[in-house]
Amino acid sequence: MTMLPPLDDPVAIARALLMCPSVTPADGGALALVEAIAEALGFAGERPVFTAPDTPDVENLFARRGDSGPHLVFAGHTDVVPPGDVARWRHDPFAGAIDDGHLWGRGAVDMKGGIAAFLAAVGRLVRDGRMPEGRVSLLITGDEEGPSINGTPKLLAWALARGERFDAAVVGEPTNPEAIGDAIKVGRRGSLSGTVTVTGQQGHVAYPDLADNPIPKLVRLVAALGDEPLDTGNDRFPPSNLEFVSLDVGNPAWNVIPRDARGRFNVRFNDIWTPATLEAELRARLTRAAGNAVDWELVVERPTSDSFLTRDPGLIDVLAAAVETVTGRRPTLSTSGGTSDARYIKDHCPVVEFGLVGQTMHKIDERVAVADLELLTRVYEAFLVGWFETAAR
Amino acid sequence: MTMLPPLDDPVAIARALLMCPSVTPADGGALALVEAIAEALGFAGERPVFTAPDTPDVENLFARRGDSGPHLVFAGHTDVVPPGDVARWRHDPFAGAIDDGHLWGRGAVDMKGGIAAFLAAVGRLVRDGRMPEGRVSLLITGDEEGPSINGTPKLLAWALARGERFDAAVVGEPTNPEAIGDAIKVGRRGSLSGTVTVTGQQGHVAYPDLADNPIPKLVRLVAALGDEPLDTGNDRFPPSNLEFVSLDVGNPAWNVIPRDARGRFNVRFNDIWTPATLEAELRARLTRAAGNAVDWELVVERPTSDSFLTRDPGLIDVLAAAVETVTGRRPTLSTSGGTSDARYIKDHCPVVEFGLVGQTMHKIDERVAVADLELLTRVYEAFLVGWFETAAR
Ligand SMILES: [Zn+2]
Ligand SMILES: [Zn+2]
Repeated sequence: MTMLPPLDDPVAIARALLMCPSVTPADGGALALVEAIAEALGFAGERPVFTAPDTPDVENLFARRGDSGPHLVFAGHTDVVPPGDVARWRHDPFAGAIDDGHLWGRGAVDMKGGIAAFLAAVGRLVRDGRMPEGRVSLLITGDEEGPSINGTPKLLAWALARGERFDAAVVGEPTNPEAIGDAIKVGRRGSLSGTVTVTGQQGHVAYPDLADNPIPKLVRLVAALGDEPLDTGNDRFPPSNLEFVSLDVGNPAWNVIPRDARGRFNVRFNDIWTPATLEAELRARLTRAAGNAVDWELVVERPTSDSFLTRDPGLIDVLAAAVETVTGRRPTLSTSGGTSDARYIKDHCPVVEFGLVGQTMHKIDERVAVADLELLTRVYEAFLVGWFETAAR
Repeated sequence: MTMLPPLDDPVAIARALLMCPSVTPADGGALALVEAIAEALGFAGERPVFTAPDTPDVENLFARRGDSGPHLVFAGHTDVVPPGDVARWRHDPFAGAIDDGHLWGRGAVDMKGGIAAFLAAVGRLVRDGRMPEGRVSLLITGDEEGPSINGTPKLLAWALARGERFDAAVVGEPTNPEAIGDAIKVGRRGSLSGTVTVTGQQGHVAYPDLADNPIPKLVRLVAALGDEPLDTGNDRFPPSNLEFVSLDVGNPAWNVIPRDARGRFNVRFNDIWTPATLEAELRARLTRAAGNAVDWELVVERPTSDSFLTRDPGLIDVLAAAVETVTGRRPTLSTSGGTSDARYIKDHCPVVEFGLVGQTMHKIDERVAVADLELLTRVYEAFLVGWFETAAR
């Protein structure tokens, strides 16, 4: 084992993690480093590898500190999205450059920086002899940015099968739009994807009466699905939104009317809908727009993911108080944005998400302010103390 | 040289041609067979091969009978479209099966049968000592069903460069919708193809405000181009018609709003429009529908082909009279349907098209009624006599 970074220094830990080239599904040594730091802090780690046909094998880490008492989980991922054109980066995305007050690299905010801040928070509490009684676990996967098949869902099932039970979870994804303290995520919209296919009759463009062009019909159905808002949102969630992501006919000829045409869409929907009621609404819209003249089919991708909202005032209030104490800002409780592994954890315990500022995530020149790593470490430290105090009562 | 079929028997000639597997751009011996029959009938043939970058080399045949006097051209092609799934054919598409009163095979009506009928018509006139004075030429290409680059346009230019001049042309494509005698084609609509591209801004479906989805905008433009008829036609031509042939985004992801979206279309247009006025109308429609909010581009494929109408009463009347004499039916003068090589010939002499019944062309089980081959041979025979009589006056 190489020398570990100082266990109370989030910048040093994040820098060491950034230098592991863990582009999903590669691990690049990232999980071993997290495990080594955790074990130095008193955690006991295991690294189950999960496999499935047609998907890459994935390494995961489950590490627990403490044997009894309230059980808090910190969840996250060490895999990162590809860096894109490396030449366009100001600094090598895997070199851990510190420049201009920032640490640069792929994963800086999503979410090696978040993991580093949590480890440093525990590191400081251990160093100072202030680590609360109880259990803290790390649930870290290498398959969040990939197909998400051999990651968090299987790691959760694996831990539950071993008798682990959790009282609350924090996911360290970047949740803040502009500055640390902006927002805690307390839920997410659901996601439903589908394909609308219209079937017509192939033929020659010079003889349209002998053919039946599916394209104008598909165009009508696309408009019918997308033009009217699904809802206007509520006090818990922003409005639901449907976006077509592709139209595909794939006809290479200029003189042939194609047989069928497809549109693919995704809906992010709030708790006004369930996947079932939403699908019914979409089918009703298609039926109305199609009339009898259009031969259409809607296939919904399975599984869909439902919306969820965490309703644990203890967890939310303690985290919000920690954020406000450290940053001086009162975080909004947000349910916007994309899905995360919180959607799997919510079935086992209350879960919230709080991490770094997301602006550069998945982009060229992803980077985190050194000051933000320090702030987030202090937030996690205050939260750890506060949550165990509340849980002990 | 193998033995030639009887020179006055259109079924035997067609059968021999069908057994040459000339799926474009292959020749399969078809042109050599036509040339051999023609030479046996007193034609002098040449077989120029034309080439161009990125297209297959193509064999062609030009054969002339007679050295002076009025010059009639018979134009056609020996190449055929692929047979598709051969297992679905009732008879091997290249075996020349005769069954149920029909000759079966790829090219039976489009247009080896037409070539056979013309050769047999000349064969009967020669046999009977009734072949008119004057010049008859065959202009046969192996590149009508392919890219049409190394075929009729170059063969025409080649013949003109050698001093050939033509007085009239008949193209032997299948022109009859139901029965021999239905229709002579005396012109064709023009053809214009184009691609409309809408550019937006890529982004994540969970953050639609940070993206700009081009798909709903393209859908609006597709409707704007296609929903209103271009015209209602006139006494010479059917209505112009626009068909979208493909929509292409090609986004494999479910959670990404794409950057751009494309629609490809083809217009078959009558003589109310020129390519220029039609393109202007399409741009006006797009501009109106797009407003300022849509970043769109229209690229028109070059070259476009204009509509044309043959106005040679001598040619048309003589052919119509021959059809009526042989079939007892008065053919309509049609301008509908797809393009043919007549669009190239029209620049050099008046051209009409008359051939077999098109119902099975380009389909599984393409076939020609034996009786139709006989009828068409008699029509060509009567036409040859009639046209030279008229031309000599
Ligand atoms: Zn992430
Ligand atoms: Zn043809």
